[in-house]
Amino acid sequence: MTRSMDEQEVRNACLDLIERSQIVIVGTVNTDGFPEIRAMLNMEHDGLREFWFSTNTSSRKIAQLKANPKGCVYYVDSEAFRGVTLTGTFEILQDKESRQRLWREGFEQYYPLGVDDPDYSVLHFTATQAEHYHGLKTVRFDV
Amino acid sequence: MTRSMDEQEVRNACLDLIERSQIVIVGTVNTDGFPEIRAMLNMEHDGLREFWFSTNTSSRKIAQLKANPKGCVYYVDSEAFRGVTLTGTFEILQDKESRQRLWREGFEQYYPLGVDDPDYSVLHFTATQAEHYHGLKTVRFDV
Repeated sequence: MTRSMDEQEVRNACLDLIERSQIVIVGTVNTDGFPEIRAMLNMEHDGLREFWFSTNTSSRKIAQLKANPKGCVYYVDSEAFRGVTLTGTFEILQDKESRQRLWREGFEQYYPLGVDDPDYSVLHFTATQAEHYHGLKTVRFDV
Repeated sequence: MTRSMDEQEVRNACLDLIERSQIVIVGTVNTDGFPEIRAMLNMEHDGLREFWFSTNTSSRKIAQLKANPKGCVYYVDSEAFRGVTLTGTFEILQDKESRQRLWREGFEQYYPLGVDDPDYSVLHFTATQAEHYHGLKTVRFDV
């Protein structure tokens, strides 16, 4: 599929925003059907489709995602009036390779038992849709 | 009900964060059951329970909230590792008094027909639950 020049520019703007972001805002739906939001460390991604983050296995978001894997990730530069929301689904990973790949210096403060800490999980997010806004212009596209 | 000193301190920290914030991040659930997130202007609130924002009547969030009024608002100071999510329900207002109260200088860029523009709506959010985090400590409470 050939993408229009406009769509390619918007994709590049999204990638640039993601790469500049230290934090990502992650949305889930709780068991009562309410959306919940929290900031997380922005870690690794492959284009606009796949994302990986670390989290505590005991956290509320893990319980919510086990019951309902639908979620979104949001990157924002509020001073530039630019943002992108990607919607898709989350998968919870605990395999050794994923844990080792995401481990960072200082993570012992979150996971005292280290890379094998049962309270350390990796979230793998796969996006299907994106919405980018800049100023007053909004563009939606399939990822 | 007497609140514990700790809970009162957390409430004060939430109010301080809300008052310092220029933007608020608003979560809704779309008709496919996925959460969606966008930044909005932080406008008016009464304590931790009631909030008012302005938006375009034609926006996706209005269509989503008509189908499902459950939502959340999130305030974050990522440098201080502090944030609060309030979950509750949204109501869409179009009465003259609410429109006039929320109207700000320069809003013609969003609502060219002025305070009576049919594309100008007010969102009224009523929170029921709050979750505040600071550093590694999370506190949940009923609003």
